[in-house]
Amino acid sequence: MSRSDLVELAKRRGYFFQSAGAYGGVSGFYTYGPQGATLKANVEDAWRERFGVQEGHREIDAPTVMPEPVFEASGHLDTFDDMLVECPECGASHRADHLIEDETDIEEAESIAIPDVEDLIADHDLQCPDCGAELAGEPVEEFNLMFETSIGPGSSSPGYLRPETAQGIFVEFPQLAEYARNQLPFGITQIGKAYRNEISPRNSLVRTREFTQAELEHFVDPTEDVPDIDRVADVELTLYPADKQEEVEGVEYVTKTVREAVEDGLVHEWVAYYLGVGKQWYESIGVDMDRFRFRQHLSGELAHYAADCWDAEGEIDGDWYELAGFAYRSDYDLSKHDEYSDDDFTVFKQYDEPKVVERATVDPDMSYLGPEFGGAAGEVADALETLAERDRAAFEGDTVTVEVDGEEHEIPTEKTGFAVEEVKETGEHVMPHVVEPSIGIDRAVYAVLVHAYEIDEVEGDERTRLALEPEVAPTFVGVFPLMDKDGMGELARELTDDLRAAGFDATYDDSGNIGRRYRRQDEVGTPFCVTVDYDSLEDHTVTLRERDSTEQVRVPVAALPDLLEDLREGERTFADLDAPAPEQ
Amino acid sequence: MSRSDLVELAKRRGYFFQSAGAYGGVSGFYTYGPQGATLKANVEDAWRERFGVQEGHREIDAPTVMPEPVFEASGHLDTFDDMLVECPECGASHRADHLIEDETDIEEAESIAIPDVEDLIADHDLQCPDCGAELAGEPVEEFNLMFETSIGPGSSSPGYLRPETAQGIFVEFPQLAEYARNQLPFGITQIGKAYRNEISPRNSLVRTREFTQAELEHFVDPTEDVPDIDRVADVELTLYPADKQEEVEGVEYVTKTVREAVEDGLVHEWVAYYLGVGKQWYESIGVDMDRFRFRQHLSGELAHYAADCWDAEGEIDGDWYELAGFAYRSDYDLSKHDEYSDDDFTVFKQYDEPKVVERATVDPDMSYLGPEFGGAAGEVADALETLAERDRAAFEGDTVTVEVDGEEHEIPTEKTGFAVEEVKETGEHVMPHVVEPSIGIDRAVYAVLVHAYEIDEVEGDERTRLALEPEVAPTFVGVFPLMDKDGMGELARELTDDLRAAGFDATYDDSGNIGRRYRRQDEVGTPFCVTVDYDSLEDHTVTLRERDSTEQVRVPVAALPDLLEDLREGERTFADLDAPAPEQ
Repeated sequence: MSRSDLVELAKRRGYFFQSAGAYGGVSGFYTYGPQGATLKANVEDAWRERFGVQEGHREIDAPTVMPEPVFEASGHLDTFDDMLVECPECGASHRADHLIEDETDIEEAESIAIPDVEDLIADHDLQCPDCGAELAGEPVEEFNLMFETSIGPGSSSPGYLRPETAQGIFVEFPQLAEYARNQLPFGITQIGKAYRNEISPRNSLVRTREFTQAELEHFVDPTEDVPDIDRVADVELTLYPADKQEEVEGVEYVTKTVREAVEDGLVHEWVAYYLGVGKQWYESIGVDMDRFRFRQHLSGELAHYAADCWDAEGEIDGDWYELAGFAYRSDYDLSKHDEYSDDDFTVFKQYDEPKVVERATVDPDMSYLGPEFGGAAGEVADALETLAERDRAAFEGDTVTVEVDGEEHEIPTEKTGFAVEEVKETGEHVMPHVVEPSIGIDRAVYAVLVHAYEIDEVEGDERTRLALEPEVAPTFVGVFPLMDKDGMGELARELTDDLRAAGFDATYDDSGNIGRRYRRQDEVGTPFCVTVDYDSLEDHTVTLRERDSTEQVRVPVAALPDLLEDLREGERTFADLDAPAPEQ
Repeated sequence: MSRSDLVELAKRRGYFFQSAGAYGGVSGFYTYGPQGATLKANVEDAWRERFGVQEGHREIDAPTVMPEPVFEASGHLDTFDDMLVECPECGASHRADHLIEDETDIEEAESIAIPDVEDLIADHDLQCPDCGAELAGEPVEEFNLMFETSIGPGSSSPGYLRPETAQGIFVEFPQLAEYARNQLPFGITQIGKAYRNEISPRNSLVRTREFTQAELEHFVDPTEDVPDIDRVADVELTLYPADKQEEVEGVEYVTKTVREAVEDGLVHEWVAYYLGVGKQWYESIGVDMDRFRFRQHLSGELAHYAADCWDAEGEIDGDWYELAGFAYRSDYDLSKHDEYSDDDFTVFKQYDEPKVVERATVDPDMSYLGPEFGGAAGEVADALETLAERDRAAFEGDTVTVEVDGEEHEIPTEKTGFAVEEVKETGEHVMPHVVEPSIGIDRAVYAVLVHAYEIDEVEGDERTRLALEPEVAPTFVGVFPLMDKDGMGELARELTDDLRAAGFDATYDDSGNIGRRYRRQDEVGTPFCVTVDYDSLEDHTVTLRERDSTEQVRVPVAALPDLLEDLREGERTFADLDAPAPEQ
């Protein structure tokens, strides 16, 4: 299969297509048609069930437009950039690192410094892919990937479309901790739109400017919370550790269970736990486990605050694409918001019994500090207090030295009122650490479609088929009358309504011959079809046909809902259907 | 109840709160906490079921960022404005029409022309509500309510956050019609974020800058499609027609069934059909039907293209707020995109049998036109062709007159090659009309909460309770051990897991005494609570308590899932529970 085959099928069958085609289309924006929107919703529901309900985490729903201070704190305003080079001839914008990766042997060009990127462009005589003009000598600039807008009249309140759903959780941590009654650990999930103003979107649903993320932020106490590894201990992981990427020629994986990965120290225990959950989830929605791996971030890729990070990757047309990231983010996000805002981003952890601790305090003699330091006296007093908390030994000599605004001041120790007291503490403030599985829903949908796309042969004819899992297939069952006459159409329409009322995505189709209708549903990915014929009018049985095997069995109409339910839930396989139903 | 009571409860219990509080909050943006996000999701699911599945319409999922040409065509770029007046002293921005409505007896000030608004501000000596400065003489300006951003690097591709989800459907009509195999009628739904950069957001969830809409665009053939009124014929509507608003002192409603409203010609048949669906839906999610009405748009409010439009309105704190609009939009939206884009926004309607029609054509003698008109000859030929289609009589004389670029030209009829031929036509292009129920999800959620908020007395104590419908309540059942000891905690936690696995939103709580836990769930709106006590350990029964009546019954643990299912689906009421279960 080539990518364009799938993209063509996706458009023709209502999965997805580039938006605003009537106006020439907009690069990086896609609309999900009826089949695609339902597939996407099914994938989201499956995520909600696995990462939310089964793990006991709660979901929130935050705005997509957020104010500037949030992104000053998160660092996105400063560092959420790609390298932009503009063609001097045609004016087209390109990602400089992508040009280098495409035209040279260099990988991971994203982490190269800008001056070196400019040199590489010149050294390799790189040209504009659109018009062929030389790019050597053109400046490479940092382009911030957030979509900017303005909140309210005037331009005094910049707002940004969130680049990740996560910030909508982090920024509300003080409120969310209250809902959790300040008890760690607790997890908050969110599914929603996120945005990156890509310089050059590409690869269909893989790199779009507007996309849907499903993120879980699991807040844990780093000193005592550990994951319940038993729940996923035996899940087998295909791992591509950093050292194999850096030191081994070719690709070499390590296969370990979650428990082994933790015990061998290869993966951080919290990250390993969610790799297990993630593997189960991707498998359940139909991603091919032979085209799926977890790749560890290289030391250069890893954020400085992250203890460990692994990406889930899926193979598409011979290339590997990031589908998700599983990161242990330490207390980075919360401590940033704690620092930049006026709120407290810690939780108060009560001790089982109060502890008596020594605390060093100061009580500076302001009648000395005032005349001595004038307007800076307050700052000097604050500096003394901070110093007492951090370094008692500094108060052992006759004078104490503190630095205020880059200038050193010496104060007689006797004027500082330094003392060590015993105080009873009932608990302490803990800054939680964050474990974050961050999943791209569109990429999951895309991988599911790519891995489901198959061409085989049926009765001598080539057949295109989407072998979607029944759990996520947007249409679960097609219902056909042999012809729309003699009451067969009515019976089939009634059956369609009944199946819908019983909770199945059912579709009715009476156009063209039966073979053509089967092909249509095969291409849409409908797992089962039911045909109403003349016998149905007499004996109330119908033909049930399975998409993948093209096998058919005759079943009573009345038994259909229970039977389809069993097939959907995996309680029975189609091969079982000739045998009597299993006892309840 | 005052609004602030509900807002306080909403924040405390995890329904909703203003976003980014750590940074001082952002006006017009709200975050749904765990309870609110689930309530909202339940409301959306109920909408999807009623307006989508039950009506046979399909859902799509389009981007929230859309390119400028879409909004040039839709008219939003030109006319989606509010009137802005800025305070000369403090710089605060205000909606001029709201100031007038708040400070004078004038209603619907939105439809007053700007110069008159400026005069009214001066005549009434209106002042800045923030600082008290005089606003007389300040210019009133049109402020476009779309959030603007820029797609890709540079500023050459403006994009806008969609002001309604509808445009994401309209603009893709050519593709969507293909999925419907060009058969009218068909309906497309969408639930998603929409944005209005309000000058001064207010009233909590009622007027926010980012909100969720659920819209259905039902495309119909105006010459032959009629709604299946029987499906909702007997639904009773509380109607507030335009004439009652304009001619009657005070408020006077008309109560009619959907069938009566259509037969009496009071409501357009398509609009009436969806008022019936809408009424059923709002009632099902718990909006109080005594605080709900349909108000017809006044002639001044009605868009020029709309044949009829009614708003669903809900009463909140004595004021009526728009919850939804039900409009017959004619072919306005599609014809605009047809005109502004290169695509065809019609469907081709096949005749049952081909029709033979006469068609007038021209075949101008270019060897005459060329020398005579030079470069304009082609335009003259085109003008002749258009004239032949429109006005055959023009070709009856010796000469024909056409206008090109404002200049009249006379051509001998014999040089035009005019002829009338018989041609066979197999069908015609039809521009569908659109019926649009447009529902604000946040306002629905808000109305549900406001109407569910009740204070009563239980055992002599005042009790706050959210009387949410079981269908939408975010937590369906609370499970408590009498105390977390002697195995009661374990049993209650097990039961919680079992109920979750059976598909119920269940919550476990062992903190505080049972009475306090009941109050907590009453305030959250949890319809049922289950208590595990010492007897439970012996006889496997538990106490089931109903929120609204505070009645309690003893039931076997094993019967609980089926029983709760019946209560949720309305198959049994709590009062039935003392009686034997109904036969299956």
